[in-house]
Amino acid sequence: MTERSRFSFTISATDGAARTGVISMKRGDIRTPAFMPVGTAATVKAMKPVDVRAAGADIILGNTYHLMLRPGAERVARLGGLHRFMGWGRPILTDSGGYQVMSLSELTKRTEEGVAFASHLDGSRHLITPERSIEIQRLLGSDIVMAFDELVPTTSTRDEQAAAMERSMRWARRSRDAFLAGGKHAEAAAQFGIQQGALDEGLRKASADALIDIGFDGYAVGGLAVGEGQEAMFGCLDFAPGQLPADRPRYLMGVGKPDDIVGAVERGIDMFDCVLPTRSGRTGQAFTADGPINLKNARFAEDQEPLDPSCACQVCTTWSRAYIHHLIRAGEILGAMLMTEHNINFYQQLMAGLRAAIEEGRLAAFAGDFRRRYRKEA
Amino acid sequence: MTERSRFSFTISATDGAARTGVISMKRGDIRTPAFMPVGTAATVKAMKPVDVRAAGADIILGNTYHLMLRPGAERVARLGGLHRFMGWGRPILTDSGGYQVMSLSELTKRTEEGVAFASHLDGSRHLITPERSIEIQRLLGSDIVMAFDELVPTTSTRDEQAAAMERSMRWARRSRDAFLAGGKHAEAAAQFGIQQGALDEGLRKASADALIDIGFDGYAVGGLAVGEGQEAMFGCLDFAPGQLPADRPRYLMGVGKPDDIVGAVERGIDMFDCVLPTRSGRTGQAFTADGPINLKNARFAEDQEPLDPSCACQVCTTWSRAYIHHLIRAGEILGAMLMTEHNINFYQQLMAGLRAAIEEGRLAAFAGDFRRRYRKEA
Repeated sequence: MTERSRFSFTISATDGAARTGVISMKRGDIRTPAFMPVGTAATVKAMKPVDVRAAGADIILGNTYHLMLRPGAERVARLGGLHRFMGWGRPILTDSGGYQVMSLSELTKRTEEGVAFASHLDGSRHLITPERSIEIQRLLGSDIVMAFDELVPTTSTRDEQAAAMERSMRWARRSRDAFLAGGKHAEAAAQFGIQQGALDEGLRKASADALIDIGFDGYAVGGLAVGEGQEAMFGCLDFAPGQLPADRPRYLMGVGKPDDIVGAVERGIDMFDCVLPTRSGRTGQAFTADGPINLKNARFAEDQEPLDPSCACQVCTTWSRAYIHHLIRAGEILGAMLMTEHNINFYQQLMAGLRAAIEEGRLAAFAGDFRRRYRKEA
Repeated sequence: MTERSRFSFTISATDGAARTGVISMKRGDIRTPAFMPVGTAATVKAMKPVDVRAAGADIILGNTYHLMLRPGAERVARLGGLHRFMGWGRPILTDSGGYQVMSLSELTKRTEEGVAFASHLDGSRHLITPERSIEIQRLLGSDIVMAFDELVPTTSTRDEQAAAMERSMRWARRSRDAFLAGGKHAEAAAQFGIQQGALDEGLRKASADALIDIGFDGYAVGGLAVGEGQEAMFGCLDFAPGQLPADRPRYLMGVGKPDDIVGAVERGIDMFDCVLPTRSGRTGQAFTADGPINLKNARFAEDQEPLDPSCACQVCTTWSRAYIHHLIRAGEILGAMLMTEHNINFYQQLMAGLRAAIEEGRLAAFAGDFRRRYRKEA
């Protein structure tokens, strides 16, 4: 058996700006475009890893911010790393903590050094710097390590956006240096830089050039899906991916709704992550080819159809909307389990459909069919 | 293929008062002694039916009281019955509602007709009679239908206990008549009577004789495990099972802890049900061969052992105590899922061990080994 490569990205077909291919890593292949279920606190909420895999996921995401606070990165390392800890042997991408530290923690103080903050769990004080973020991701045993960056709202002034982007690029350099100093981990893992610059084409270009100058295995489009709306996001994606190297994976962080993903794939994005399928599963929203439906609704009380009549997942071939409506109304854990499993299957089936459509040069027809049928609001 | 019998009980071996055998029914065989996981509201909480089956369960229990209130027996019937609704194709035993109506509902009023009560969910008024209990169980499509009975505390006066037992025997007759009038359902399902009489040998004997006179497919020992303590319960089980027909299954309702089950099997009990493995799973208590342990305890934070090192279930071969400790501390649904799955596997493995020991005439040694190792308190 030949040893698997650290990181390679092979594009097998393109269709317009869209591409399909395979990222090959030590722990397995990642078919792109890929959707990464979010395993926040070392668990894809309400799902066993074996069912996440059975749905078709090649890679999951872990959150540096959550894991550094509980159970702690050093503890995970002592327990053999995140893969062994949670029972998922395939690739894991870890974010840098930059997004959550600004959105979840309190009393944050940003300096050139990094971000000081108080834990949302117990108020304990922490400092996260580019170097500490990379160290945490190494302790977790991450396969794809994200650079530590700074976020500002897309509604900030251009000067604020420029300053945050420039600091993020300095932090990207420090993140890269810290990663490459990581010894054995750096020989087995990959690292992605994160493009910033809000919705401004010039700032995005400057950010891309700075990252390319540093040199990463892949590149993320950061700072989107933060409330700017789909039209503005697509507007940015009309130029941002093209500023990044064509031969490297492009990852759109924190996106998104099914229709967001279809539009982003058409614009050249290869990787996605989002809590939507898991979180929605716990609040009663199921994704279907006709759009999202809320299973709490009384109209499903005697509906014998599966969640999505066009879905082949185990949930849809076993249980009715009426049963899942009952479980959710009764507050049963199984309701969250079945909804989450279906939603993750829905997302993975969507990605498989997109990959096949690109491979066969019929993405426009696939996306058109999808949009004609999919109602964005339940 | 020959058609499966409605109900037969074949004892393959005895060891002292203990017996092992098979109950054969339309929907499948039930190996005895059997433990029935409780599927309160049409779900064994936090487990998929496929995993309940994989653990070794041949039969589960459904609660008439919970299902009549939500989603409603008529609704379950319109949706094709409880088996189809919840995706469990093997036998289901339903209780009569008698226990929960007294322990959970409010404003109960008992008369010779039945029990009027207010729902604990919404305060709505209901009346449950022997005839209605049997009708509900028929609407659910129950395989083993329980007679409707009246419970009194074991601390009641003997006169109160005698009066409640005598009323329960009148209700048993009405329950039997209602069951036998059930047409096709009566041709496919079985019915058990419930012996009452608290801890009094004379009342228990009178109750057994009354039930035998009516004639049921199996007999339950009711009214125990209600706070009287293990010693008092075992004292009653020293005579109660022997008062019931030797060639019919004997079901000890609502029991119990692993050591309760071992002692009851030694005294001639064939079937059990209890919420303990599922409920404990959601509150952090895992059953092990050395006794229960509470995974919330900080001493498990870096414990790399499985929940029970002598257990071969998927949970124990995949995850550490440290991981499950983390999940429970973080309030993750997966924690309840994995704990429940292990606990149900533990109970089913215990039953398999008891069956094999009886088959091989070494129950005393098995029970002695179990008790020497098992500490009742964590």
